[in-house]
Amino acid sequence: MIVKKEIRILGWDDGPFPKRGKGKAILIGVIFRGASFIDGVLKTEIEIDGTDATEKIAEAVKKSRHKDLRIIMLDGITFGGFNFVDMKKLYEETKLPVISVTRKKTNMRKFKEAMKKLPNFEKRWEAVKNAGKLFEIKVGSRGKSIYFQKYGLSEEEAREIIKLTAKRSNIPEPIRVAHLIASGVVRGESVGRA
Amino acid sequence: MIVKKEIRILGWDDGPFPKRGKGKAILIGVIFRGASFIDGVLKTEIEIDGTDATEKIAEAVKKSRHKDLRIIMLDGITFGGFNFVDMKKLYEETKLPVISVTRKKTNMRKFKEAMKKLPNFEKRWEAVKNAGKLFEIKVGSRGKSIYFQKYGLSEEEAREIIKLTAKRSNIPEPIRVAHLIASGVVRGESVGRA
Repeated sequence: MIVKKEIRILGWDDGPFPKRGKGKAILIGVIFRGASFIDGVLKTEIEIDGTDATEKIAEAVKKSRHKDLRIIMLDGITFGGFNFVDMKKLYEETKLPVISVTRKKTNMRKFKEAMKKLPNFEKRWEAVKNAGKLFEIKVGSRGKSIYFQKYGLSEEEAREIIKLTAKRSNIPEPIRVAHLIASGVVRGESVGRA
Repeated sequence: MIVKKEIRILGWDDGPFPKRGKGKAILIGVIFRGASFIDGVLKTEIEIDGTDATEKIAEAVKKSRHKDLRIIMLDGITFGGFNFVDMKKLYEETKLPVISVTRKKTNMRKFKEAMKKLPNFEKRWEAVKNAGKLFEIKVGSRGKSIYFQKYGLSEEEAREIIKLTAKRSNIPEPIRVAHLIASGVVRGESVGRA
């Protein structure tokens, strides 16, 4: 894959939701050309603590008018609580490589215990395994460490795309802006991330 | 006013709504640093064909955590059908200069006739008068003509701000992106504007 400066990236984040295990959370997808120009905005809804996040994102991508998407970027692999995105399945469904970015390492022991309290443990655990190895990368003007997982592209390609989009902030623009929109739409004003 | 490259601009547009005269429309406000970096997203709701747009925008500005806003930009002066923003009142309430941008000149004769069918004609007409003179400006890489009205700043300052934010498109970024978000959130996928 050649990473052009204006590569189309679709970044996803979820909106805040009132209560674990009840109702729906919104997911916002933002289509960026590289790091600075927004081409479009997508929205879908998923069940809080449900298992439909992968399917709902794949659906939104497949029915989108934007046929020039090259990468899906996720703010972590869980949305709406413990609704996991299976990066392998998402890749297979959309044919688009997937990068998941987080600011902190997850405490996997605690995480697994919480997951065991929910139905469909095996399906969720499969998503954790399919996300693969966690890589570290230094971004932004201060070289802060963040972490990523990837599917369907090489480590080098993923690094290049994250570096391209996380120049001005510690979070790649497509997911930083998806977060601002999702929280702004739900709360009336976005909750910031530097 | 000194127009810095990273001046904070709050651009507003409304979302699509199903039917004239019934229910609410969403308004999305996007806070830009100059032309390229998004600092935050606001949301409020107004009555379709109502008279609360000015008040709802002023409220959202006043309660926002963003205290560094310098300009309000509007996609026209009507939202949710014929719900007018009175730029003079909005300026008085928020102390922020206001620029309204449109791609086409309104046919004022037809417009006034449609307005007369609604209650509160005087209040709406006052907003039309307070928006003042319509100016033409050439923007974007192809020098396309768009139009603007302004309150609380000079014609030259308004021109400078529009030129700063409409480099890559015919529409200033803050309202172009507000439009993408508002339509994306309501429809599931944004409806584009070059």
